[in-house]
Amino acid sequence: MFSKPTLLLSEEICRANIEFMLAKALRLGIELRPHFKTHQSIEIGRWFRDYGIGKIAVSSVPMAQYFASDGWNDITVAFPYVYQQADEVNALAKSINLQVLVSSLGNAKLLSKSIKNRVNVYIEIDTGQYRSGLQAEDFDTIDKTIEVILSNPNTNFYGFLSHAGHSYNNHLNKITQINTEVTSKLNQLKNNYIKQFPSLKISYGDTPTSWTCEQFDGIDELRPGNYTFFDMQQASNGICSTSNIAIALVCPVVAVYPERSRAIIWGGAVHLTKDFYTDNDGNKSFGAVCKLNPDYTWTKPIEGMYLESISQEHGVVRAKNCEAIKSLREGDLIAVLPPHSCLTADKMGGFWVQEKRFIPMMKS
Amino acid sequence: MFSKPTLLLSEEICRANIEFMLAKALRLGIELRPHFKTHQSIEIGRWFRDYGIGKIAVSSVPMAQYFASDGWNDITVAFPYVYQQADEVNALAKSINLQVLVSSLGNAKLLSKSIKNRVNVYIEIDTGQYRSGLQAEDFDTIDKTIEVILSNPNTNFYGFLSHAGHSYNNHLNKITQINTEVTSKLNQLKNNYIKQFPSLKISYGDTPTSWTCEQFDGIDELRPGNYTFFDMQQASNGICSTSNIAIALVCPVVAVYPERSRAIIWGGAVHLTKDFYTDNDGNKSFGAVCKLNPDYTWTKPIEGMYLESISQEHGVVRAKNCEAIKSLREGDLIAVLPPHSCLTADKMGGFWVQEKRFIPMMKS
Repeated sequence: MFSKPTLLLSEEICRANIEFMLAKALRLGIELRPHFKTHQSIEIGRWFRDYGIGKIAVSSVPMAQYFASDGWNDITVAFPYVYQQADEVNALAKSINLQVLVSSLGNAKLLSKSIKNRVNVYIEIDTGQYRSGLQAEDFDTIDKTIEVILSNPNTNFYGFLSHAGHSYNNHLNKITQINTEVTSKLNQLKNNYIKQFPSLKISYGDTPTSWTCEQFDGIDELRPGNYTFFDMQQASNGICSTSNIAIALVCPVVAVYPERSRAIIWGGAVHLTKDFYTDNDGNKSFGAVCKLNPDYTWTKPIEGMYLESISQEHGVVRAKNCEAIKSLREGDLIAVLPPHSCLTADKMGGFWVQEKRFIPMMKS
Repeated sequence: MFSKPTLLLSEEICRANIEFMLAKALRLGIELRPHFKTHQSIEIGRWFRDYGIGKIAVSSVPMAQYFASDGWNDITVAFPYVYQQADEVNALAKSINLQVLVSSLGNAKLLSKSIKNRVNVYIEIDTGQYRSGLQAEDFDTIDKTIEVILSNPNTNFYGFLSHAGHSYNNHLNKITQINTEVTSKLNQLKNNYIKQFPSLKISYGDTPTSWTCEQFDGIDELRPGNYTFFDMQQASNGICSTSNIAIALVCPVVAVYPERSRAIIWGGAVHLTKDFYTDNDGNKSFGAVCKLNPDYTWTKPIEGMYLESISQEHGVVRAKNCEAIKSLREGDLIAVLPPHSCLTADKMGGFWVQEKRFIPMMKS
């Protein structure tokens, strides 16, 4: 069993994360629309359904089709409208409540030109990430974009959606400030348009803000995804604890070099991808190293040990000294907590729950 | 066609790369054992066979099984021996000429303990990458490792293998120096052991050194892989030209922001992975942006335009000014040359040759 790099999932940790976030949303009286891009799995989607969740976000039209095939009937595609996928969007819009995004005036024009069945349309707002979306202050372009949306009777202007992706690169102590800035911008927009569009909705909420903040006045729904699994980027920023991380990559140890305080594992960029985080000691790390328990759970990260570099199939484990690296031996299996769980899961294509059961993901 | 991020392959460029490298090896009188980890495809493997190539390297036992299933019968697994895969290695060793690596004394002991059918065994030597392998000067450990290999009659000590992976991070003007240092170390080893083992082989040769250097005295075979497709890391280091790059990711343009000199494409970390290179202007770039021609070939990279950042599905294209970004429009398809072709290919799982034919890769 596990003779090659294999992704383990703790159903217990994952369900605890799902429950915690839902309980918080219920307490705050705010709708929760979890983003399913992190797990991309019908089976894990059903775990959310077990707690009564009925509305989801995804990051592509194929992902919307995949989840619609399992009965999800209220889906937001939280990615700018892709003109080349008009046929697929029109087909989906026939059978489910579909929300799509327009992220520029030109993007809205292509939507308006190509949509034949009813969809709800959010205007995406850039609130500081400097990625996609109109600027919150650019009322002129927002007005023109709304006009384009209204020109097609099948595209229903639904509100404003934003992803404060810059929260991912910040430590816990800055998250509240980011949340205040972003929700303030979104509320200014809401106040400006609510008279004209009384049912206007504001969709917002990445994992760092949704998990840690308490103040979401004026926000209609939260859309976090990463919290399903969490990862070392979130843990190293203080958003979660390492005990919240629900996935780990099992890797064989193939060579140990005490004189260099290093060891080599089979586990590299084709498994973990090349994202990284900065650990407590200031090291750039491609993963945290844990012992694998006989029951396929894993320990806390081994202190002072981290994945120093990765290439296609190799991972280089660095320890603080030659004695420390000797706790690993050739032939061992270890568990690596990934820097970025969304990318590692997407790469691995599925999850093992202990050695008993494989949970597949959508085929990309 | 191509309504989502899609990996295109130019058979013409790829075959030209295959032919160039083989012609050079023949001219130098050195054996070529191309590394198939870059393409991981039975069909592309057959293109090599068209030119008479019969020996290959791979980076994992599953990859060896995959190519053995298409009749390749001389394969080097250029990765430290994985004890957990002993059964698979023993099975392969029955049917093909199999070379494996040991990369530490402990690694050799596990090999010796678990091999039941004849395999050829290289000792991996670290020649400056500081990844896996014994130090070239550590004769004591090398002697002990040879002893362990000789203790099992089925493990045939075959020679020394090295990967000078540090050549990948260096510009062309340093490659000759690296090659001289590395080949000199390997020749010292060879001279030290050749009397005792007259048929000792030295296997070496990454893409930067194999493609650009001329002096390989004492080296028995070259093992480059990346040259099959090349990529922007190699082009930006001056190893190849962008016209040598054989794969490009087709991406829909979804939003254009002239006021920010930026555009958003559907093409992100789940397609390109998160490797990067430094472009001629000193920018950190996640890909070079080209126009896609109607016949599904692509232009040279657009000057001053590059992929500034990527997240899961988004790519952010940066242009030098607002006029320049206007050459892209929502609804366009563009072609992105990847920073690291091995990782992008591995992620995408296959290649389109124009819009006519899909070439699958091994399922990982």
